[in-house]
Amino acid sequence: MCAEQLSVYDAIRLRRDVRAEFTGELVDDDTLWRILSAAHRAPSVGNSQPWDFVVVREAATLRRFADHVAGKRVEFRDALPADRAATFDPIKIEGIVESGTGIVVTHDDRRGGPQVLGRASVPETGVYSTVLAIQNLWLAATAEQVGVGWVSFYEPGFLRDLVDLPEGITPIAWLCVGPVHEFQEVPDLERFGWRARRALTDAVHYEKFGG
Amino acid sequence: MCAEQLSVYDAIRLRRDVRAEFTGELVDDDTLWRILSAAHRAPSVGNSQPWDFVVVREAATLRRFADHVAGKRVEFRDALPADRAATFDPIKIEGIVESGTGIVVTHDDRRGGPQVLGRASVPETGVYSTVLAIQNLWLAATAEQVGVGWVSFYEPGFLRDLVDLPEGITPIAWLCVGPVHEFQEVPDLERFGWRARRALTDAVHYEKFGG
Repeated sequence: MCAEQLSVYDAIRLRRDVRAEFTGELVDDDTLWRILSAAHRAPSVGNSQPWDFVVVREAATLRRFADHVAGKRVEFRDALPADRAATFDPIKIEGIVESGTGIVVTHDDRRGGPQVLGRASVPETGVYSTVLAIQNLWLAATAEQVGVGWVSFYEPGFLRDLVDLPEGITPIAWLCVGPVHEFQEVPDLERFGWRARRALTDAVHYEKFGG
Repeated sequence: MCAEQLSVYDAIRLRRDVRAEFTGELVDDDTLWRILSAAHRAPSVGNSQPWDFVVVREAATLRRFADHVAGKRVEFRDALPADRAATFDPIKIEGIVESGTGIVVTHDDRRGGPQVLGRASVPETGVYSTVLAIQNLWLAATAEQVGVGWVSFYEPGFLRDLVDLPEGITPIAWLCVGPVHEFQEVPDLERFGWRARRALTDAVHYEKFGG
Protein backbone atom coordinates (compact mmCIF):
# COMPACT_ATOMS: atom_id res chain seq x y z
CA MET A 1 0.00 0.00 0.00
CA CYS A 2 1.39 3.36 -1.03
CA ALA A 3 1.72 5.82 1.85
CA GLU A 4 0.05 8.51 -0.21
CA GLN A 5 -3.09 6.38 -0.42
CA LEU A 6 -3.93 5.26 3.10
CA SER A 7 -7.25 6.89 3.91
CA VAL A 8 -7.56 9.19 6.86
CA TYR A 9 -10.13 6.90 8.47
CA ASP A 10 -7.82 3.89 8.09
CA ALA A 11 -4.90 5.86 9.50
CA ILE A 12 -7.02 6.81 12.52
CA ARG A 13 -8.08 3.18 12.97
CA LEU A 14 -4.63 1.60 12.47
CA ARG A 15 -2.58 4.13 14.47
CA ARG A 16 -1.06 2.72 17.65
CA ASP A 17 1.15 3.98 20.43
CA VAL A 18 4.13 1.77 19.53
CA ARG A 19 6.65 0.40 22.01
CA ALA A 20 7.64 -3.13 20.99
CA GLU A 21 7.16 -3.35 17.23
CA PHE A 22 10.09 -1.29 15.91
CA THR A 23 12.12 -3.16 13.29
CA GLY A 24 15.43 -1.61 14.34
CA GLU A 25 15.86 0.10 10.96
CA LEU A 26 16.06 3.90 10.86
CA VAL A 27 13.26 5.84 9.22
CA ASP A 28 14.77 7.24 6.01
CA ASP A 29 15.23 10.98 5.59
CA ASP A 30 12.59 11.50 2.88
CA THR A 31 9.94 9.72 4.93
CA LEU A 32 10.92 11.61 8.07
CA TRP A 33 10.60 14.89 6.19
CA ARG A 34 7.14 14.00 4.86
CA ILE A 35 6.05 13.18 8.41
CA LEU A 36 7.46 16.44 9.77
CA SER A 37 5.80 18.35 6.91
CA ALA A 38 2.48 16.83 7.92
CA ALA A 39 3.04 18.00 11.50
CA HIS A 40 3.92 21.47 10.25
CA ARG A 41 0.58 21.71 8.38
CA ALA A 42 -1.37 21.56 11.64
CA PRO A 43 -3.73 24.38 12.56
CA SER A 44 -2.39 26.86 15.09
CA VAL A 45 -3.94 29.69 17.00
CA GLY A 46 -3.32 32.97 15.17
CA ASN A 47 -1.20 30.98 12.66
CA SER A 48 1.54 31.10 15.32
CA GLN A 49 3.01 27.65 14.46
CA PRO A 50 4.57 27.53 17.94
CA TRP A 51 6.18 24.09 17.57
CA ASP A 52 9.74 22.91 16.91
CA PHE A 53 11.10 19.42 16.33
CA VAL A 54 14.45 18.21 17.60
CA VAL A 55 15.47 15.00 15.83
CA VAL A 56 17.71 12.92 18.09
CA ARG A 57 19.74 9.97 16.80
CA GLU A 58 23.03 10.00 18.66
CA ALA A 59 23.30 6.67 20.44
CA ALA A 60 24.65 8.19 23.65
CA THR A 61 21.73 10.65 23.86
CA LEU A 62 19.14 7.94 23.24
CA ARG A 63 20.79 5.78 25.90
CA ARG A 64 20.87 8.60 28.46
CA PHE A 65 17.20 9.34 27.93
CA ALA A 66 16.26 5.65 28.08
CA ASP A 67 18.13 5.28 31.39
CA HIS A 68 16.31 8.31 32.81
CA VAL A 69 12.94 6.93 31.71
CA ALA A 70 13.76 3.53 33.21
CA GLY A 71 14.25 5.24 36.56
CA LYS A 72 10.91 7.05 36.33
CA ARG A 73 9.26 3.77 35.44
CA VAL A 74 10.53 2.23 38.69
CA GLU A 75 9.22 5.21 40.66
CA PHE A 76 5.77 4.87 39.13
CA ARG A 77 5.72 1.12 39.64
CA ASP A 78 6.72 1.38 43.28
CA ALA A 79 3.89 3.83 43.99
CA LEU A 80 1.20 1.47 42.63
CA PRO A 81 -1.00 -0.81 44.74
CA ALA A 82 0.17 -4.45 44.43
CA ASP A 83 -2.52 -5.55 41.98
CA ARG A 84 -1.93 -2.60 39.66
CA ALA A 85 1.83 -3.12 39.88
CA ALA A 86 1.39 -6.71 38.71
CA THR A 87 -0.71 -5.51 35.76
CA PHE A 88 1.85 -2.82 34.96
CA ASP A 89 4.95 -5.06 35.06
CA PRO A 90 4.76 -6.57 31.55
CA ILE A 91 3.80 -3.29 29.86
CA LYS A 92 6.59 -1.74 27.80
CA ILE A 93 6.53 2.03 28.08
CA GLU A 94 9.17 3.13 25.56
CA GLY A 95 11.20 2.13 22.52
CA ILE A 96 13.76 4.91 22.70
CA VAL A 97 16.83 2.96 21.63
CA GLU A 98 15.05 0.42 19.41
CA SER A 99 13.28 3.06 17.29
CA GLY A 100 16.62 4.77 16.61
CA THR A 101 15.01 8.20 16.26
CA GLY A 102 13.55 10.45 18.91
CA ILE A 103 11.61 13.56 18.00
CA VAL A 104 11.39 16.06 20.84
CA VAL A 105 8.40 18.27 20.15
CA THR A 106 8.75 21.66 21.81
CA HIS A 107 6.53 24.70 22.27
CA ASP A 108 7.35 28.40 22.16
CA ASP A 109 4.55 30.38 23.77
CA ARG A 110 6.03 33.72 22.63
CA ARG A 111 5.78 32.82 18.98
CA GLY A 112 3.24 34.96 17.17
CA GLY A 113 4.07 38.17 19.02
CA PRO A 114 2.24 40.02 21.76
CA GLN A 115 -1.25 39.75 20.23
CA VAL A 116 -1.95 36.22 19.05
CA LEU A 117 -5.32 36.18 17.30
CA GLY A 118 -7.56 33.81 19.25
CA ARG A 119 -5.42 33.40 22.35
CA ALA A 120 -6.57 36.38 24.41
CA SER A 121 -9.29 34.58 26.39
CA VAL A 122 -7.93 31.04 26.28
CA PRO A 123 -4.13 31.25 26.46
CA GLU A 124 -3.80 27.46 26.50
CA THR A 125 -4.71 27.39 22.81
CA GLY A 126 -1.02 28.11 22.20
CA VAL A 127 0.18 24.78 23.55
CA TYR A 128 -2.89 23.04 22.15
CA SER A 129 -1.65 24.01 18.68
CA THR A 130 1.60 22.16 19.27
CA VAL A 131 -0.33 19.08 20.36
CA LEU A 132 -2.44 19.17 17.18
CA ALA A 133 0.81 19.00 15.21
CA ILE A 134 1.73 15.81 17.05
CA GLN A 135 -1.46 14.11 15.91
CA ASN A 136 -0.82 15.08 12.29
CA LEU A 137 2.68 13.61 12.62
CA TRP A 138 1.33 10.42 14.16
CA LEU A 139 -1.27 9.80 11.45
CA ALA A 140 1.14 10.55 8.59
CA ALA A 141 3.65 8.15 10.17
CA THR A 142 0.97 5.46 10.27
CA ALA A 143 0.47 5.86 6.52
CA GLU A 144 4.23 5.32 6.10
CA GLN A 145 4.19 2.12 8.20
CA VAL A 146 6.23 4.08 10.72
CA GLY A 147 5.39 3.69 14.38
CA VAL A 148 5.24 6.48 16.94
CA GLY A 149 5.46 5.98 20.68
CA TRP A 150 4.86 8.98 22.94
CA VAL A 151 7.06 8.71 26.01
CA SER A 152 5.97 10.74 29.03
CA PHE A 153 7.92 9.08 31.86
CA TYR A 154 10.48 11.86 32.24
CA GLU A 155 11.27 14.98 34.19
CA PRO A 156 10.82 17.98 31.88
CA GLY A 157 14.01 19.55 33.28
CA PHE A 158 16.04 16.48 32.32
CA LEU A 159 14.78 16.60 28.74
CA ARG A 160 15.37 20.35 28.53
CA ASP A 161 19.03 19.84 29.45
CA LEU A 162 19.42 16.80 27.19
CA VAL A 163 18.62 18.71 24.01
CA ASP A 164 19.66 22.19 25.17
CA LEU A 165 16.28 23.90 25.13
CA PRO A 166 16.68 27.65 25.54
CA GLU A 167 14.71 29.66 28.09
CA GLY A 168 11.08 29.94 26.99
CA ILE A 169 11.00 26.72 24.97
CA THR A 170 8.98 23.95 26.67
CA PRO A 171 9.29 20.24 25.93
CA ILE A 172 5.89 18.75 25.11
CA ALA A 173 6.71 15.18 24.06
CA TRP A 174 9.40 12.66 23.24
CA LEU A 175 8.25 10.60 20.29
CA CYS A 176 9.99 7.33 19.40
CA VAL A 177 9.76 7.12 15.61
CA GLY A 178 10.76 4.17 13.46
CA PRO A 179 9.61 1.58 10.95
CA VAL A 180 7.51 -1.21 12.44
CA HIS A 181 6.85 -4.75 11.31
CA GLU A 182 3.19 -4.44 12.32
CA PHE A 183 0.69 -2.34 14.21
CA GLN A 184 -1.06 -4.15 17.03
CA GLU A 185 -4.78 -4.49 16.46
CA VAL A 186 -5.65 -3.87 20.12
CA PRO A 187 -3.90 -1.04 22.01
CA ASP A 188 -1.30 -2.28 24.51
CA LEU A 189 -3.08 -0.97 27.59
CA GLU A 190 -6.21 -2.88 26.64
CA ARG A 191 -4.32 -6.07 25.70
CA PHE A 192 -2.49 -6.07 29.03
CA GLY A 193 -5.64 -5.35 31.02
CA TRP A 194 -4.55 -1.94 32.27
CA ARG A 195 -7.71 -0.11 31.23
CA ALA A 196 -10.67 -0.95 28.99
CA ARG A 197 -12.13 1.24 26.29
CA ARG A 198 -14.98 3.63 26.98
CA ALA A 199 -18.10 3.56 24.80
CA LEU A 200 -18.54 6.55 22.53
CA THR A 201 -22.19 6.78 23.56
CA ASP A 202 -20.99 7.68 27.08
CA ALA A 203 -18.86 10.51 25.71
CA VAL A 204 -21.47 12.24 23.53
CA HIS A 205 -24.04 14.58 25.04
CA TYR A 206 -26.71 16.76 23.49
CA GLU A 207 -27.25 20.45 24.23
CA LYS A 208 -25.98 20.15 27.84
CA PHE A 209 -23.33 18.02 29.51
CA GLY A 210 -25.08 14.87 30.68
CA GLY A 211 -27.93 15.69 28.26
CA MET B 1 -14.84 11.50 -3.80
CA CYS B 2 -15.92 9.02 -1.16
CA ALA B 3 -15.14 10.12 2.40
CA GLU B 4 -13.70 6.72 3.18
CA GLN B 5 -11.07 7.23 0.49
CA LEU B 6 -9.50 10.63 1.09
CA SER B 7 -5.87 9.94 1.97
CA VAL B 8 -4.49 11.09 5.28
CA TYR B 9 -1.95 13.28 3.52
CA ASP B 10 -4.68 14.93 1.44
CA ALA B 11 -6.83 15.45 4.53
CA ILE B 12 -3.88 17.13 6.27
CA ARG B 13 -3.27 19.31 3.22
CA LEU B 14 -6.92 20.26 2.55
CA ARG B 15 -7.99 20.83 6.18
CA ARG B 16 -8.84 24.45 7.01
CA ASP B 17 -10.06 26.38 10.00
CA VAL B 18 -13.43 27.28 8.50
CA ARG B 19 -15.41 30.43 9.27
CA ALA B 20 -17.11 31.66 6.09
CA GLU B 21 -17.66 28.58 3.91
CA PHE B 22 -20.52 26.80 5.71
CA THR B 23 -23.40 25.95 3.37
CA GLY B 24 -26.05 26.43 6.06
CA GLU B 25 -27.10 22.76 5.89
CA LEU B 26 -26.77 20.65 9.03
CA VAL B 27 -24.25 17.84 9.10
CA ASP B 28 -26.32 14.64 9.04
CA ASP B 29 -26.33 12.32 12.03
CA ASP B 30 -24.42 9.43 10.44
CA THR B 31 -21.64 11.71 9.31
CA LEU B 32 -21.49 13.41 12.68
CA TRP B 33 -21.20 10.03 14.37
CA ARG B 34 -18.35 8.94 12.08
CA ILE B 35 -16.52 12.16 12.89
CA LEU B 36 -17.05 11.70 16.63
CA SER B 37 -15.92 8.07 16.36
CA ALA B 38 -12.70 9.25 14.74
CA ALA B 39 -12.15 11.64 17.64
CA HIS B 40 -12.83 8.86 20.11
CA ARG B 41 -10.08 6.71 18.52
CA ALA B 42 -7.40 9.20 19.51
CA PRO B 43 -4.50 8.09 21.68
CA SER B 44 -4.79 9.03 25.35
CA VAL B 45 -2.39 8.84 28.25
CA GLY B 46 -3.01 5.65 30.21
CA ASN B 47 -5.95 4.95 27.86
CA SER B 48 -7.85 7.47 29.98
CA GLN B 49 -9.99 8.84 27.10
CA PRO B 50 -10.58 12.01 29.13
CA TRP B 51 -12.71 13.81 26.52
CA ASP B 52 -16.45 14.41 26.12
CA PHE B 53 -18.40 16.03 23.32
CA VAL B 54 -21.46 18.20 23.80
CA VAL B 55 -23.33 18.63 20.53
CA VAL B 56 -25.19 21.96 20.53
CA ARG B 57 -27.89 22.80 17.98
CA GLU B 58 -30.54 24.78 19.78
CA ALA B 59 -30.82 28.10 17.98
CA ALA B 60 -31.04 30.11 21.19
CA THR B 61 -27.86 28.55 22.57
CA LEU B 62 -25.94 29.13 19.34
CA ARG B 63 -27.11 32.73 19.30
CA ARG B 64 -26.13 33.34 22.94
CA PHE B 65 -22.67 31.97 22.34
CA ALA B 66 -22.25 33.95 19.12
CA ASP B 67 -23.23 37.17 20.95
CA HIS B 68 -20.70 36.44 23.69
CA VAL B 69 -17.96 35.80 21.13
CA ALA B 70 -18.84 39.00 19.27
CA GLY B 71 -18.21 40.91 22.49
CA LYS B 72 -14.83 39.26 22.99
CA ARG B 73 -13.94 40.09 19.41
CA VAL B 74 -14.52 43.78 20.07
CA GLU B 75 -12.34 43.61 23.20
CA PHE B 76 -9.49 42.02 21.27
CA ARG B 77 -9.85 44.48 18.40
CA ASP B 78 -9.82 47.49 20.70
CA ALA B 79 -6.58 46.34 22.33
CA LEU B 80 -4.71 46.13 19.02
CA PRO B 81 -2.41 48.82 17.60
CA ALA B 82 -4.11 50.67 14.74
CA ASP B 83 -2.32 48.89 11.89
CA ARG B 84 -3.07 45.45 13.33
CA ALA B 85 -6.67 46.44 14.01
CA ALA B 86 -7.06 47.35 10.34
CA THR B 87 -5.66 43.96 9.31
CA PHE B 88 -7.94 42.21 11.80
CA ASP B 89 -11.17 43.97 10.81
CA PRO B 90 -12.13 41.84 7.76
CA ILE B 91 -11.17 38.51 9.38
CA LYS B 92 -14.16 36.37 10.35
CA ILE B 93 -13.48 34.53 13.61
CA GLU B 94 -16.49 32.25 13.93
CA GLY B 95 -19.35 30.54 12.14
CA ILE B 96 -21.36 29.56 15.17
CA VAL B 97 -24.86 30.19 13.82
CA GLU B 98 -24.08 29.47 10.15
CA SER B 99 -22.59 26.02 10.82
CA GLY B 100 -25.68 25.03 12.77
CA THR B 101 -23.77 22.63 15.02
CA GLY B 102 -21.36 23.38 17.81
CA ILE B 103 -19.30 20.66 19.43
CA VAL B 104 -18.00 21.62 22.85
CA VAL B 105 -15.01 19.42 23.57
CA THR B 106 -14.41 19.00 27.28
CA HIS B 107 -11.74 17.44 29.45
CA ASP B 108 -12.02 15.43 32.69
CA ASP B 109 -8.64 15.29 34.39
CA ARG B 110 -9.88 12.75 36.95
CA ARG B 111 -10.71 10.16 34.32
CA GLY B 112 -8.46 7.12 34.55
CA GLY B 113 -8.32 7.04 38.34
CA PRO B 114 -5.60 8.06 40.78
CA GLN B 115 -2.69 6.44 38.86
CA VAL B 116 -2.83 7.29 35.19
CA LEU B 117 -0.07 5.37 33.41
CA GLY B 118 2.25 7.94 31.83
CA ARG B 119 0.94 11.02 33.59
CA ALA B 120 2.99 10.95 36.80
CA SER B 121 5.85 13.18 35.58
CA VAL B 122 4.01 15.22 32.95
CA PRO B 123 0.46 15.78 34.21
CA GLU B 124 -0.38 17.94 31.18
CA THR B 125 -0.47 14.79 29.03
CA GLY B 126 -4.05 14.42 30.28
CA VAL B 127 -5.33 17.51 28.53
CA TYR B 128 -3.00 16.87 25.58
CA SER B 129 -4.96 13.65 24.97
CA THR B 130 -8.17 15.60 24.58
CA VAL B 131 -6.49 17.92 22.07
CA LEU B 132 -5.30 14.93 20.01
CA ALA B 133 -8.94 13.85 19.75
CA ILE B 134 -9.79 17.24 18.26
CA GLN B 135 -7.27 16.78 15.44
CA ASN B 136 -8.70 13.34 14.61
CA LEU B 137 -12.15 14.91 14.47
CA TRP B 138 -10.91 17.74 12.25
CA LEU B 139 -9.23 15.45 9.71
CA ALA B 140 -12.15 13.03 9.54
CA ALA B 141 -14.48 15.99 8.99
CA THR B 142 -12.28 17.16 6.11
CA ALA B 143 -12.73 13.77 4.44
CA GLU B 144 -16.50 14.26 4.77
CA GLN B 145 -16.39 17.72 3.16
CA VAL B 146 -17.40 19.04 6.56
CA GLY B 147 -15.70 22.13 7.85
CA VAL B 148 -14.50 22.73 11.39
CA GLY B 149 -13.80 26.12 12.90
CA TRP B 150 -12.21 26.26 16.34
CA VAL B 151 -13.56 29.27 18.23
CA SER B 152 -11.46 30.52 21.14
CA PHE B 153 -12.82 34.03 21.66
CA TYR B 154 -14.77 33.21 24.82
CA GLU B 155 -14.58 33.23 28.59
CA PRO B 156 -14.32 29.63 29.78
CA GLY B 157 -16.77 30.38 32.61
CA PHE B 158 -19.40 31.55 30.13
CA LEU B 159 -19.10 28.35 28.11
CA ARG B 160 -19.20 26.23 31.27
CA ASP B 161 -22.51 27.79 32.24
CA LEU B 162 -23.91 27.64 28.71
CA VAL B 163 -23.70 23.85 28.49
CA ASP B 164 -23.89 23.06 32.23
CA LEU B 165 -20.43 21.61 32.73
CA PRO B 166 -20.17 19.97 36.15
CA GLU B 167 -17.33 20.71 38.57
CA GLY B 168 -14.11 19.11 37.33
CA ILE B 169 -15.02 19.19 33.64
CA THR B 170 -13.04 21.80 31.68
CA PRO B 171 -14.07 23.26 28.31
CA ILE B 172 -11.24 22.91 25.78
CA ALA B 173 -12.81 24.08 22.53
CA TRP B 174 -15.96 25.16 20.73
CA LEU B 175 -15.92 23.69 17.25
CA CYS B 176 -18.28 24.98 14.56
CA VAL B 177 -19.07 21.92 12.44
CA GLY B 178 -21.01 21.89 9.18
CA PRO B 179 -20.93 21.06 5.48
CA VAL B 180 -18.92 23.51 3.38
CA HIS B 181 -19.09 24.42 -0.29
CA GLU B 182 -15.29 24.55 -0.49
CA PHE B 183 -12.12 24.62 1.56
CA GLN B 184 -9.98 27.70 1.01
CA GLU B 185 -6.62 26.88 -0.51
CA VAL B 186 -4.74 29.42 1.60
CA PRO B 187 -5.52 29.70 5.34
CA ASP B 188 -7.54 32.80 6.22
CA LEU B 189 -4.86 34.39 8.39
CA GLU B 190 -2.38 34.20 5.52
CA ARG B 191 -4.89 35.42 2.92
CA PHE B 192 -5.78 38.43 5.04
CA GLY B 193 -2.15 39.22 5.80
CA TRP B 194 -2.39 38.58 9.53
CA ARG B 195 0.62 36.27 9.73
CA ALA B 196 2.76 34.47 7.14
CA ARG B 197 3.77 30.82 7.23
CA ARG B 198 7.02 29.69 8.81
CA ALA B 199 9.42 27.49 6.84
CA LEU B 200 9.68 23.91 8.06
CA THR B 201 13.46 24.12 7.83
CA ASP B 202 13.35 26.71 10.63
CA ALA B 203 11.37 24.34 12.85
CA VAL B 204 13.54 21.22 12.52
CA HIS B 205 16.74 20.82 14.53
CA TYR B 206 19.19 17.97 14.88
CA GLU B 207 20.42 16.52 18.17
CA LYS B 208 20.11 19.85 20.03
CA PHE B 209 17.71 22.78 19.78
CA GLY B 210 19.24 25.19 17.30
CA GLY B 211 21.45 22.34 16.05
